[in-house]
Amino acid sequence: MKKYIKITLLIALSLSLTTCSLIPTKVIVSEMDPGFCMNCHQQVTPGLFQSWVESKHAKNGVNCITCHTDHQAASDQKAMVFPDKCGECHAKQLQEFQMSRHSIGFDRMRIQGEYLGIPQEIRSAFCERCHTVQKRCNSCHTSHRFSLKEARDPYACGCCHLGPDHPHKEMYKTSLHGTIYKITQNPDRAPRCVTCHMPYGTHNSSFGIARGPAGTRSEVVNMKEIPISKEDEEKRREEMIGVCASCHSRRFAREQLENADQVKEAGFELQKKGKDVIHEIAKEGLLYPSLAERMPHPTEGRTLVLADPQLYLGTSQIERLFFTMFKFHNIRVWKSGYHFSPSYTHGYGWAEMQLDLIDIKEEAEKLRGIFREKK
Amino acid sequence: MKKYIKITLLIALSLSLTTCSLIPTKVIVSEMDPGFCMNCHQQVTPGLFQSWVESKHAKNGVNCITCHTDHQAASDQKAMVFPDKCGECHAKQLQEFQMSRHSIGFDRMRIQGEYLGIPQEIRSAFCERCHTVQKRCNSCHTSHRFSLKEARDPYACGCCHLGPDHPHKEMYKTSLHGTIYKITQNPDRAPRCVTCHMPYGTHNSSFGIARGPAGTRSEVVNMKEIPISKEDEEKRREEMIGVCASCHSRRFAREQLENADQVKEAGFELQKKGKDVIHEIAKEGLLYPSLAERMPHPTEGRTLVLADPQLYLGTSQIERLFFTMFKFHNIRVWKSGYHFSPSYTHGYGWAEMQLDLIDIKEEAEKLRGIFREKK
Amino acid sequence: MKKYIKITLLIALSLSLTTCSLIPTKVIVSEMDPGFCMNCHQQVTPGLFQSWVESKHAKNGVNCITCHTDHQAASDQKAMVFPDKCGECHAKQLQEFQMSRHSIGFDRMRIQGEYLGIPQEIRSAFCERCHTVQKRCNSCHTSHRFSLKEARDPYACGCCHLGPDHPHKEMYKTSLHGTIYKITQNPDRAPRCVTCHMPYGTHNSSFGIARGPAGTRSEVVNMKEIPISKEDEEKRREEMIGVCASCHSRRFAREQLENADQVKEAGFELQKKGKDVIHEIAKEGLLYPSLAERMPHPTEGRTLVLADPQLYLGTSQIERLFFTMFKFHNIRVWKSGYHFSPSYTHGYGWAEMQLDLIDIKEEAEKLRGIFREKK
Repeated sequence: MKKYIKITLLIALSLSLTTCSLIPTKVIVSEMDPGFCMNCHQQVTPGLFQSWVESKHAKNGVNCITCHTDHQAASDQKAMVFPDKCGECHAKQLQEFQMSRHSIGFDRMRIQGEYLGIPQEIRSAFCERCHTVQKRCNSCHTSHRFSLKEARDPYACGCCHLGPDHPHKEMYKTSLHGTIYKITQNPDRAPRCVTCHMPYGTHNSSFGIARGPAGTRSEVVNMKEIPISKEDEEKRREEMIGVCASCHSRRFAREQLENADQVKEAGFELQKKGKDVIHEIAKEGLLYPSLAERMPHPTEGRTLVLADPQLYLGTSQIERLFFTMFKFHNIRVWKSGYHFSPSYTHGYGWAEMQLDLIDIKEEAEKLRGIFREKK
Repeated sequence: MKKYIKITLLIALSLSLTTCSLIPTKVIVSEMDPGFCMNCHQQVTPGLFQSWVESKHAKNGVNCITCHTDHQAASDQKAMVFPDKCGECHAKQLQEFQMSRHSIGFDRMRIQGEYLGIPQEIRSAFCERCHTVQKRCNSCHTSHRFSLKEARDPYACGCCHLGPDHPHKEMYKTSLHGTIYKITQNPDRAPRCVTCHMPYGTHNSSFGIARGPAGTRSEVVNMKEIPISKEDEEKRREEMIGVCASCHSRRFAREQLENADQVKEAGFELQKKGKDVIHEIAKEGLLYPSLAERMPHPTEGRTLVLADPQLYLGTSQIERLFFTMFKFHNIRVWKSGYHFSPSYTHGYGWAEMQLDLIDIKEEAEKLRGIFREKK
Repeated sequence: MKKYIKITLLIALSLSLTTCSLIPTKVIVSEMDPGFCMNCHQQVTPGLFQSWVESKHAKNGVNCITCHTDHQAASDQKAMVFPDKCGECHAKQLQEFQMSRHSIGFDRMRIQGEYLGIPQEIRSAFCERCHTVQKRCNSCHTSHRFSLKEARDPYACGCCHLGPDHPHKEMYKTSLHGTIYKITQNPDRAPRCVTCHMPYGTHNSSFGIARGPAGTRSEVVNMKEIPISKEDEEKRREEMIGVCASCHSRRFAREQLENADQVKEAGFELQKKGKDVIHEIAKEGLLYPSLAERMPHPTEGRTLVLADPQLYLGTSQIERLFFTMFKFHNIRVWKSGYHFSPSYTHGYGWAEMQLDLIDIKEEAEKLRGIFREKK
């Protein structure tokens, strides 16, 4: 009880003394005394409470009720606070966020063939854990501390941007950039994710200065998946080089990025060789199970889908070999080019794609040897 | 020589001034002057000596002879100190340790079929390096510094709990819990391994508050491998939720853990589909090499072993495909559910299991196509 | 402008006051005023400039022109500074470096069959990014800060020494050595890469105290790829044990290293089993595509190449299975022995090799079943 009084005094003091830019731009009047929540929660959820106490929010008088409205509402919506609420104070950040790919993450997931093809419990434990970024600023701004140090750390981004199909964290970590940052923890010494993807603090990530978004497609597209113009691409490249130029000559930066463009092209060319073998096999009627024998694709129906939105289940093995090639290995080849991670470009990428191609060609020959006579 | 005198004085001083709880609970009288060891060892093993000098042991007068008995004995048993010796001072910790899975780690390894199936040099470099945890408190409490900081760090646990067949470290690192801990190094901000597995400092790890132990089995069993009662399971779950509740609502924590239960079930169901295909193939007599043609399993004999204690050598390829499915991929699916690591649940787990199933089904068809006629 | 004056004064002051051993051993007279470069570069490349300002170089009056000669020359050779230039001041380090494997890294790459078999853009983004170590001291000594902390960190070495075909970083990280260093950041508590590979600060890495170099060959060879004498090997082993002895007894250290020797032997024996199966298949004329049907090896011609310098593209699948076995898995088995990483010895190594062997044997049977009749 004494603790709570101390906290309330702290808030009062903070409100009277600070003139920080993060203070609410309009006065938020709560119907409810925040003491109602805190009285209990400093006992039942002490870790949460302590994190808030140490936050800028606490120092600026932003309390439970400011964000959660009232205790019943908080309970009803499982304590979720949506970006619109955060935007009441952080308007510029909300506006930028709404232009970013992050702001459509949940909606795009829900129409994905892959998502539709997996059981609900896996969806919850996997897809939705990251794709809620559309609905939760605290995907990156870790509640209830909301520390900028935590949000800007490459590992914060790496919580979602990792794993076999988009190893952004791994590629960064294995680059010289990531290595120097890791050793020095000094963003003036080497870039971290936000340096390039949220330059100058914009919350319009991926539509900011980097060339994305892209998925596994080779074109650079806008939020409606429409390829952007060559001019716009060039403009973004120049802006990107402007970031590199803090430490590198513009000539060097341009050369490195153009090399990455070439790597990307080489990856997609190699991927096409795998695709061609499978189209041939399909024409020869040797896919097993055939398109007729299997469940239709949730969004594409009974067509041969190679590359996004290809599924990883219920297909023939030769398609499955291609799935690994395009989804796990080609993505490493081309994305690592822009992240300057040689081991992902080659060992985990290009070499694996070449091995995939051998597997695909051999499987085609086996299908011909084993199954043609049977037909 | 001067150095040694300084050290001896330090010990004497420490003994006279400190009343720390770690001071031996019974007086240990050594026959041997510890100076005999130190005189030499501060020259020949200066790193070891320096670590000890900085340890609480040194500050509390615990010296070479306290643990190693005497120079000849230490040399005879290769300087090993067994838990019973540590328990002379740390009785509570020893008692808890003896109720934990760690305390049977070496014995269980020695009767494992897998262990019996591999050469001694690999056993030494691999199995025994971790499984000596039964015999060595310094598996976790790194000698000769015995720093609590080192023992409690997630990386200390991760020294053994990592790799393809139990990537606990990797799952934790890729969770939001692990990420926030990594960035902040603050155990009040996010849990580390010991928070859940050794709650409130108990040394009864795995039989503490988490639901384990489990291996790759779906049941929760006791130290004699007998499934524990539903009531006991529920009790443990409630205790676990009590730990989560420091930062999360109990409702939220329960939902997350129940989602993990469902993920676990889904993983084992999918695994069963692979198993069923192979049982069918075995019935059709198409396993190659057949059970009769191969070395018998060291503990199970000439039976078809799918899932633990299945071996990874000398089997048919279709069994090998299942080995990868159950041992490397299903374990990621279900354990990652409880560790909240989406990339291990899906990309490294569920997706890989689906690809495994395609491989297994295709291999079955190939076996039928190629080898049936030959029989 | 003011900033620049401050910097020039700083340099002048540093030159007059310091007598550090890193001060140029001969007076370097530049034709050019370094202010010419800095005037601009503190504006256009502020990150680079700031790194230099904080460097020992700046403190000792080593400026742009000292290393880059003049602005035109710097631009012409893309700002590269070659080891000979660094050696003008750091003569001992250059001399040691020239005896190391690092100093032939680029030349050896250029005659490698693998290198010759991949497109230029992948070569630039992959091979050359690391192999320029021959030409750039700033591969390890990160420009323009040239901090010893950065150069000595295990992650600095790990920038190149990582990935599927030489996971040195990963093996170290997953060892107890790497773990304790990670937690403590104290090189007196646990060794880092340079402790064993550049003992006592020698720049003759790999020809220093460790037993290398080796590649995937089982012999220890010199820079001309000629196996070194047994006596020389023994001498190096004793020197290595001298490093271990800082913390371990010599007996223990010797035992651990001899265990690693045995692990190495076991790995190569297992690898040979895979090789034997493929030689048999080749004799039976079942390689597909056959040596006659495929592009010749860039350096070995139309011969069956198993193990280095085997290519990963255009071969038969059974050779590709062996490629994975020798290049990714056996290297983990034997190198992890010396790096004390049990998960790389077993899970990522030995177990994978056994699975590879099953795959190779099964593929041999399939080739016999499917393709023999067709011939």
